[in-house]
Amino acid sequence: MRIAELSRRTGVPVPTIKYYLREGLLPPGERTSPNQASYDESHVHRVRLVRALVEVGGVSIAAAREVLRLMHEPGRTPLMSLGKVHFAVQAARLPHTDAPSAAAVEQAAALIERQGWQVRETNPARQALAGVLDYLARLGQPDALGMLDTYAAAATQLASAEIDTLTHSSVDAMAEHAVTITVLGNALLAALRGLAQESAATAKMGRDG
Amino acid sequence: MRIAELSRRTGVPVPTIKYYLREGLLPPGERTSPNQASYDESHVHRVRLVRALVEVGGVSIAAAREVLRLMHEPGRTPLMSLGKVHFAVQAARLPHTDAPSAAAVEQAAALIERQGWQVRETNPARQALAGVLDYLARLGQPDALGMLDTYAAAATQLASAEIDTLTHSSVDAMAEHAVTITVLGNALLAALRGLAQESAATAKMGRDG
Repeated sequence: MRIAELSRRTGVPVPTIKYYLREGLLPPGERTSPNQASYDESHVHRVRLVRALVEVGGVSIAAAREVLRLMHEPGRTPLMSLGKVHFAVQAARLPHTDAPSAAAVEQAAALIERQGWQVRETNPARQALAGVLDYLARLGQPDALGMLDTYAAAATQLASAEIDTLTHSSVDAMAEHAVTITVLGNALLAALRGLAQESAATAKMGRDG
Repeated sequence: MRIAELSRRTGVPVPTIKYYLREGLLPPGERTSPNQASYDESHVHRVRLVRALVEVGGVSIAAAREVLRLMHEPGRTPLMSLGKVHFAVQAARLPHTDAPSAAAVEQAAALIERQGWQVRETNPARQALAGVLDYLARLGQPDALGMLDTYAAAATQLASAEIDTLTHSSVDAMAEHAVTITVLGNALLAALRGLAQESAATAKMGRDG
């Protein structure tokens, strides 16, 4: 397909696609004439992945380029490629907080152990979890902490459903999917929680509230 | 208690408490001498609520003042007070996106109907949900959309557990709790999802991945 068709398929404007090409985020198409190139399905997935990383995930162009490079290093397994994209997107979105306390880090590790999760030491979500636990402790909200395992169980349930939607297609398509699930999944859940919370509060307090 | 004790109980520095007093976010203590005042439990909850609103919730001082004023308008029910705080915190955290498409707004309404949720038209999460649906459509991720009802079911389950932890104590204490659940709950879930996702991916792809 020509670049106009690639733009139509991905919803990304032609000038943005040319920018991705210049920045090395998108491999060049097959040259068909001195000023025309042909693109294929792999380009469609790559454009969507870059857009999801950069626009939705808030990953910098430099970080996106590094993620894409690592994804295609020879000898990498799909799981390792996926893991790199997943970690990079999460790390790019973490709030810049102080280092968590030793107590919170230990509490996070205990939760991971309790849930039987297989999680590497390098997963940025460990740090994020410990940071939130510190904040809750400072706010003096022990009740919210009582919800911790309930939240964890919901996360396990969702992750299992999410991973089932991952088809063993190209590494780019899987990575694109992982970015969508990570970034838009969080935004979706936050919105849905805002609705479900109002509904639950109304149901509970409706009569006497 | 004196202001030093109020600071110790809440973890909020004395100068910050004085700032809240000057800004009218905290009612004055009972004057016990020309330059000393006495504070009670209602002040502890109020300081924590203001901190959660402003520091964690990202609500402006002016918006926080308005929320607190509305919370204590005569004739308001606890549910209405809680609802105001809930909506204000959500609205303050929404990304500034374009108005969602009519199709996405309709899709969001259909989901709310399907879930049997009792949700007012003014809940800011409606707009947030429609915005995410638009993004997903533009990214061409129908699979993530297939997860919509799974996410909604998880939100319902969590909301029910969250509302059960709400004790009918003071309006301030309930509002503080609602802010914590909304803001820190989302951060907690995002972190836990990041861990559960790695674990689920490793379990599924471990052998062949």
